[in-house]
Amino acid sequence: MAILVVGSVAFDSIETPHGKVDHCLGGAATHFALAASYFTDVRVIAVVGEDFLPHHEAVFRARGIDIQGIERAPGLSFHWTGAYAGTMSEAETLGTDLNVFERFEPKIPQAYTDSEYLFLANIDPVLQARVRSQMQNVRMVCGDTMNYWISAHAENLAKVLRDLDVLLINDGEARMLSGEQNSVRAAQKVLAMGPKSLVMKHGEYGATAFFGAHSFPGMAATPRPFRAPALPLAEVVDPTGAGDSFAGGFYGYIASQPKLTPEVFRRAMFYGGVMGSFACERFGTERLQGVTRNEIDARFEIFREISHLDSSAV
Amino acid sequence: MAILVVGSVAFDSIETPHGKVDHCLGGAATHFALAASYFTDVRVIAVVGEDFLPHHEAVFRARGIDIQGIERAPGLSFHWTGAYAGTMSEAETLGTDLNVFERFEPKIPQAYTDSEYLFLANIDPVLQARVRSQMQNVRMVCGDTMNYWISAHAENLAKVLRDLDVLLINDGEARMLSGEQNSVRAAQKVLAMGPKSLVMKHGEYGATAFFGAHSFPGMAATPRPFRAPALPLAEVVDPTGAGDSFAGGFYGYIASQPKLTPEVFRRAMFYGGVMGSFACERFGTERLQGVTRNEIDARFEIFREISHLDSSAV
Repeated sequence: MAILVVGSVAFDSIETPHGKVDHCLGGAATHFALAASYFTDVRVIAVVGEDFLPHHEAVFRARGIDIQGIERAPGLSFHWTGAYAGTMSEAETLGTDLNVFERFEPKIPQAYTDSEYLFLANIDPVLQARVRSQMQNVRMVCGDTMNYWISAHAENLAKVLRDLDVLLINDGEARMLSGEQNSVRAAQKVLAMGPKSLVMKHGEYGATAFFGAHSFPGMAATPRPFRAPALPLAEVVDPTGAGDSFAGGFYGYIASQPKLTPEVFRRAMFYGGVMGSFACERFGTERLQGVTRNEIDARFEIFREISHLDSSAV
Repeated sequence: MAILVVGSVAFDSIETPHGKVDHCLGGAATHFALAASYFTDVRVIAVVGEDFLPHHEAVFRARGIDIQGIERAPGLSFHWTGAYAGTMSEAETLGTDLNVFERFEPKIPQAYTDSEYLFLANIDPVLQARVRSQMQNVRMVCGDTMNYWISAHAENLAKVLRDLDVLLINDGEARMLSGEQNSVRAAQKVLAMGPKSLVMKHGEYGATAFFGAHSFPGMAATPRPFRAPALPLAEVVDPTGAGDSFAGGFYGYIASQPKLTPEVFRRAMFYGGVMGSFACERFGTERLQGVTRNEIDARFEIFREISHLDSSAV
């Protein structure tokens, strides 16, 4: 079933120990949509500038992604410049040119209104809330945010968190949002803000899902967390978009299943890790454009092998 | 079968956000021995001072640990002072009084010479090598080290690494030892130094085992890494000794099994995490003194539940 994602479609200029790219296609909605497109139909709401050309469109179309919700505006697209060094676990932002994104006013095309799954990628929580309020009939809402909104727009963010099914953020963001250093207590505080569950991403260490009481049908009354591994990669070429790709794999898999069971949630965590690992293998969206469903499922089995006691891996 | 451990038996003064303790029993060999004692016989070689009293001895004896190899010397025992803050992932060392440890010259009691498993806890690699050379008939040798030996005693350490079966160190130590920031490449370089496998500990994120080609009988020619989770803990009272407790659970389980199969290695990684998680729940050795084998096995099942796709956890 279709996922509607609202977020950024942008250009990224990135430097890592493996090289440098200038103005490659990026943005949270882009990475999310590409990753999710291997599992289900995806529809995008975003704004781009005049530098968004037919060959950029083609990246989405080749994956069957519906982009009638990508609005064109005069000017340039959102442009992010960043660099990674050392363990590459965190990007250093060198520049953020909002450009057309500064006046982004999400509009939901008529054809999108029957979307059953909504993903609020990392944008101004005021816009997230506006889209959410226009999509009252969705089955599920997941979302992301970042330090900037947590620290400077806490009140607006609180409104969004209130009725999220799953919030996907990283460790540092969870600590900042909760004011707690310990991850379990951080998760408890975040869950108390509204989300039924919190997927805390740990970069190269995988991710942990935390659940509130009676989070989802079929789950235990006080469910334990669930930990999914990440794939140890000898070559992290570019981690940009790995978190959005995780979200895309996670949510795409959920939307592809008839219903959300505990087993589906756990498998979704693994598919998230799988798509995140692919994203890191090339600059920008390159790897996620070219991966195949067979490769995805083969890697899912590797994730199982490297984490399960009865595996044949070792 | 019996594990012989050589390392420190010491006193720790520790401050964490949960409180403060002064001169509690500690040291790598202590934590290791207590954790391993739930699985197999343990024999300790260490040196202590006149401040090591009958009630300290009793901690070992209560767990059936053989301490005839703990030598008494005039003066005070090794004393470490440290503090944890923030995410508590790293200790700040405030003081290291080597005391009797400064002139430690490990002597192997006759009754220890038939030990089949040897653990070289974190001490001067010259001493590690000396003990190793006197224990030629062991089935397996595992060891630990730390930044100080890696940076200032690299040559001596290299001799120890050359014929280790398993090196257990944390991420930062692996990066320092290899000069590589990426964990997979760091592991490859460390394995090239000699160890058949490397268990890289990630603190609250668990641990990853990396294997060289044909590391152990029954393993694949080019085995994949194996990732074990850690238990998300809402109360990390004191992480001191968690790494040594991991090593004790890991190696104790291996020594308790008739042979080292890939399955045994994977389960050992989980038991390592289990013992590490208990260690964090109280100051010093308190929790590891009082845990039961039933609690250990129940927690092992929790580790399975929180990491396996077919679990009933969520």
